[in-house]
Amino acid sequence: MLLRMSTLFVRTLRQDPADAEVASHRLLVRAGYIRRAAPGIYTWLPLGLRVLRKVEAVVREEMDAAGSQEVHFPALLPKEPYEVTGRWTEYGPNIFRLKDRKGGDYLLAPTHEELFTLLVKDLYSSYKDLPLTLYQIQTKYRDEVRPRAGLIRGREFIMKDAYSFDVDDAGLEASYQTQRDTYRRIFDRLGLEYVIVAATSGAMGGSRSEEFLTPTAIGEDTYVRSAGGYTANVEAVTTPAPPAIDFSGAPASHVEDTPDTPTIDSLVAVANERFPRADRPWTAADTLKNVVLALVRPTGERELLVVGLPGDRDVDLKRLEAAMSPAEVETATPADLAARPDLVAGYIGPEKLGENAGLDAKGAPLGVRYLLDPRIVSGTRWITGANSAGQHVFDLVAGRDFLAAAQDGATNTVEAAEVRAGDEAPDGSGPLELARGIEIGHIFALGRKYAAALGLTVLDHNGKAVVVTMGSYGIGVSRVLAALAEAHHDDAGLAWPPQVAPAHVHVVATGKDPAVFEAAESLAATLSSRGIEVLYDDRKKVSPGVKFADAELLGVPLVVVVGRGLAEGVVEVRPRRAGPDGPSAEQVPVAEAPDRVAELVDGLLSS
Amino acid sequence: MLLRMSTLFVRTLRQDPADAEVASHRLLVRAGYIRRAAPGIYTWLPLGLRVLRKVEAVVREEMDAAGSQEVHFPALLPKEPYEVTGRWTEYGPNIFRLKDRKGGDYLLAPTHEELFTLLVKDLYSSYKDLPLTLYQIQTKYRDEVRPRAGLIRGREFIMKDAYSFDVDDAGLEASYQTQRDTYRRIFDRLGLEYVIVAATSGAMGGSRSEEFLTPTAIGEDTYVRSAGGYTANVEAVTTPAPPAIDFSGAPASHVEDTPDTPTIDSLVAVANERFPRADRPWTAADTLKNVVLALVRPTGERELLVVGLPGDRDVDLKRLEAAMSPAEVETATPADLAARPDLVAGYIGPEKLGENAGLDAKGAPLGVRYLLDPRIVSGTRWITGANSAGQHVFDLVAGRDFLAAAQDGATNTVEAAEVRAGDEAPDGSGPLELARGIEIGHIFALGRKYAAALGLTVLDHNGKAVVVTMGSYGIGVSRVLAALAEAHHDDAGLAWPPQVAPAHVHVVATGKDPAVFEAAESLAATLSSRGIEVLYDDRKKVSPGVKFADAELLGVPLVVVVGRGLAEGVVEVRPRRAGPDGPSAEQVPVAEAPDRVAELVDGLLSS
Repeated sequence: MLLRMSTLFVRTLRQDPADAEVASHRLLVRAGYIRRAAPGIYTWLPLGLRVLRKVEAVVREEMDAAGSQEVHFPALLPKEPYEVTGRWTEYGPNIFRLKDRKGGDYLLAPTHEELFTLLVKDLYSSYKDLPLTLYQIQTKYRDEVRPRAGLIRGREFIMKDAYSFDVDDAGLEASYQTQRDTYRRIFDRLGLEYVIVAATSGAMGGSRSEEFLTPTAIGEDTYVRSAGGYTANVEAVTTPAPPAIDFSGAPASHVEDTPDTPTIDSLVAVANERFPRADRPWTAADTLKNVVLALVRPTGERELLVVGLPGDRDVDLKRLEAAMSPAEVETATPADLAARPDLVAGYIGPEKLGENAGLDAKGAPLGVRYLLDPRIVSGTRWITGANSAGQHVFDLVAGRDFLAAAQDGATNTVEAAEVRAGDEAPDGSGPLELARGIEIGHIFALGRKYAAALGLTVLDHNGKAVVVTMGSYGIGVSRVLAALAEAHHDDAGLAWPPQVAPAHVHVVATGKDPAVFEAAESLAATLSSRGIEVLYDDRKKVSPGVKFADAELLGVPLVVVVGRGLAEGVVEVRPRRAGPDGPSAEQVPVAEAPDRVAELVDGLLSS
Repeated sequence: MLLRMSTLFVRTLRQDPADAEVASHRLLVRAGYIRRAAPGIYTWLPLGLRVLRKVEAVVREEMDAAGSQEVHFPALLPKEPYEVTGRWTEYGPNIFRLKDRKGGDYLLAPTHEELFTLLVKDLYSSYKDLPLTLYQIQTKYRDEVRPRAGLIRGREFIMKDAYSFDVDDAGLEASYQTQRDTYRRIFDRLGLEYVIVAATSGAMGGSRSEEFLTPTAIGEDTYVRSAGGYTANVEAVTTPAPPAIDFSGAPASHVEDTPDTPTIDSLVAVANERFPRADRPWTAADTLKNVVLALVRPTGERELLVVGLPGDRDVDLKRLEAAMSPAEVETATPADLAARPDLVAGYIGPEKLGENAGLDAKGAPLGVRYLLDPRIVSGTRWITGANSAGQHVFDLVAGRDFLAAAQDGATNTVEAAEVRAGDEAPDGSGPLELARGIEIGHIFALGRKYAAALGLTVLDHNGKAVVVTMGSYGIGVSRVLAALAEAHHDDAGLAWPPQVAPAHVHVVATGKDPAVFEAAESLAATLSSRGIEVLYDDRKKVSPGVKFADAELLGVPLVVVVGRGLAEGVVEVRPRRAGPDGPSAEQVPVAEAPDRVAELVDGLLSS
């Protein structure tokens, strides 16, 4: 393959695009790999498409090698299957919806669980047909609230989505592990660093999921890890419930006047000044903060929610939202609060919330819905609002004066408090560190949710119909390309891993000497005939400086300069980025250049 | 490559699907290549996807070889560019439209002229950058009124669309010819017979277009050809205007009572009975029939139209619609007629139509819009309606008693009359034959319509901004696959051309003898290791009859049966379809089988 810069459909830009916040976006646009067609919707130019196809090829080869079979579904799908599983509603405004000329409802699919389930139901009927894993590499759609960072969060994007079908739990576990191993091989081959973290399943459902995150400061996801090997998306971190405390000797609660203490800081200051504690000063951790939020359901329905948590922690909206999925979470508005005069802003206490406010005739809580941080276990003592402006209650004991956080973690608790560096890992493997990453893959043990809803059963060994159990496995292919650009660039431009670079070698002819262009042309042709992918800068009226800058921007891993050295019979061969282990610049006699370049390319591709 | 029937995601059907009208649809579903997801929207199963990718690869290779550069646009596009060119409106209900969460208007693109134009405008600015031809292979959408025939007329389908950009007309002509030649190579390589016919440009616009049709009785398009080499889609056939006739000696027109003659046949019978002609009997060709139709504009606006044509010809709605594009044409309803009491059903004459009814103060015709067949030239004499029930007028002379068809063919004429076998070709190259075909490609010399609308100019040699001239070139990739299935099948199933078959060899192991399965396995592995694509029927509990039927249905070009013959040391090698020039069944010693099969595969692929 031989691409010529003189005719290649590309224009490099010296200026950053105005809307680009992150390096991958900035450089992919500047280097002429992609162009924006609409917010979150991009066009692939020839060089970008070449990289994309190489990423796809790696994904495809590894998926095939793992015994997965490729199919291809439409993007435009009828509503009905998504209605059966409830996702037509659950996705709310996050999917593109449309009507056809006959008024039928359609969506642009964000993921295809329903259709894969129905296809397998159409073709298969026996346990003998399983296990089965199908996949596709296909264009997907999400109507993101805030498309951002170029290819990282787009509205039209390319996914590899795979689905496994098994007759029993052990089969699902094996299929899940196979895909997990396949993902490791894919990202290893692509030269993309990753961590595998426990994750929440969100609207997808299912019993267990893990994300593959590539670490980067510009990542949208925060994850934690402990020295002992615990890793999780911060949304999936669970708070170990401390043991309950015997409260038989606890003093009775008492309400105190605490004027002008609407904040935790002001409350702690007043408490220490006027109601000092004998053993140590009060801290924010002694207070119980009750935060009012609004849940917005996919149907648009709005419900108030109060979260109670220790006053030294904030609510992490993303963690709360993950816990409340598919509802979205917003901070409460003045209108929300005005509608509930029982919520005294700044002085809200648990005794008027949820079940603490009593039950109605049907047994439903009379107060606003109330969920507790798992730390608020029975016997813990708190300073908290007394539901009266300027008053707080002291020695309010969970489990005695209000309903404590359930030890089973299921009923009245919620994972909404921020996770902080230094928090103990839930598995006791040490304190947590926090870092950021981009989600490049997500694997789900779905279980029987979709198969049950859509009636996918097979006959088992005994001729009995059993519901199939499924897994779902996604890789954001276009996002992976952006993640590669994030991981492999410098100030001058992109620096692609050889496996996905748009070409192996960038031959640059400099100056005006026809002999230089002849030699460069000949070298480019020779390399190309040996199966090496060559980008040849054959432009006649472009200065060496511009050509070198373009080579650095475009990021082909090996650069060969044919120029002044030709008079001494040499060309310069240099890596786009010299590394401690990689090749460095060298002068190579013209006649030996093809062999030397081929050798270097082989080395790069096999490294 | 080695696919095993025991694990391949495929199920063959013995029954035709209920909704399948044509062989390609029927067989592609029965053989497990595709499944319907919604009307006109299909899922590709593994074997179908393999064939599709091979068709795409041929298209891609030839496009690349012609110097076209591949890019990839989104399918989801904002309204604005399509509004600038008018196509947002012109497409009417034929495209899928949707709104995003912010209320912005989007469409699912049926074709991408606007976006390619804007992309070139974004990157290029000089005549030195041209010529340029870009293409993509991409998913397209049309909200067809009647999706039909499986992949032949779908609502989501795969297109190769290419666009050329040139600085002048000579450049466009050269780019057009390059694409035309490329299309010939593509269809030749695919083993798909085709004719190239003159075509109308429809909503696409432009000065000239040609279609590539593959001949088949189930085709939606009718085309003509003459012995002298004229070919055209029937929609594009022009009627040569006969010479005008001197009418100075013609008798005056006279109205006659012709009760109960609402049809041409009844009118001719009465005319011959009561007003016989001296030299010969009256025929339908002596009558002028005025047919009332309704134009429906993309905006939904409805306008009546009367077409006048010789009574021996019917209106061809598809020809009329092509002439009236982007408006659609319907037959007039009783309500349409009731609204115009001046149109006396069955007795409409030209004197009350269009300009014949006089002009208003602004010079607009007072009568219903009236268009004439080009044959109604000045001096022709007609029997036609007298605008009064039960009365016709005789010797009504065009050009004397009503406005004749304009000789320039532009103003008051229309190509609406059916074209019949035996009609003279417009270029005088002999009588026309009619045949049917599927449109597999369409190439347009667009000219400057899109570039002018969207401001795509480049600086020419003199530094002056000139509007770029464009061509647009489409191949219906998924439709080509269906056309291949139409062209290559028999009653038993598909019979793919070797270049696009999902595998080269179908190895079938029959019986229960473990030695047979061992030998078949070994042969399949050997062939696969030599780069031959093998589909191996390794199913243990399936009868030979079912396996052979599946092999015929699936249509892999070479079948190797490992079975009873193994006892005598031979396997049977046979073509899916024996042809006069192709290989026939032969018994091959096991040890020689790999060489012999490889030789036959080479022969098939190079033929």
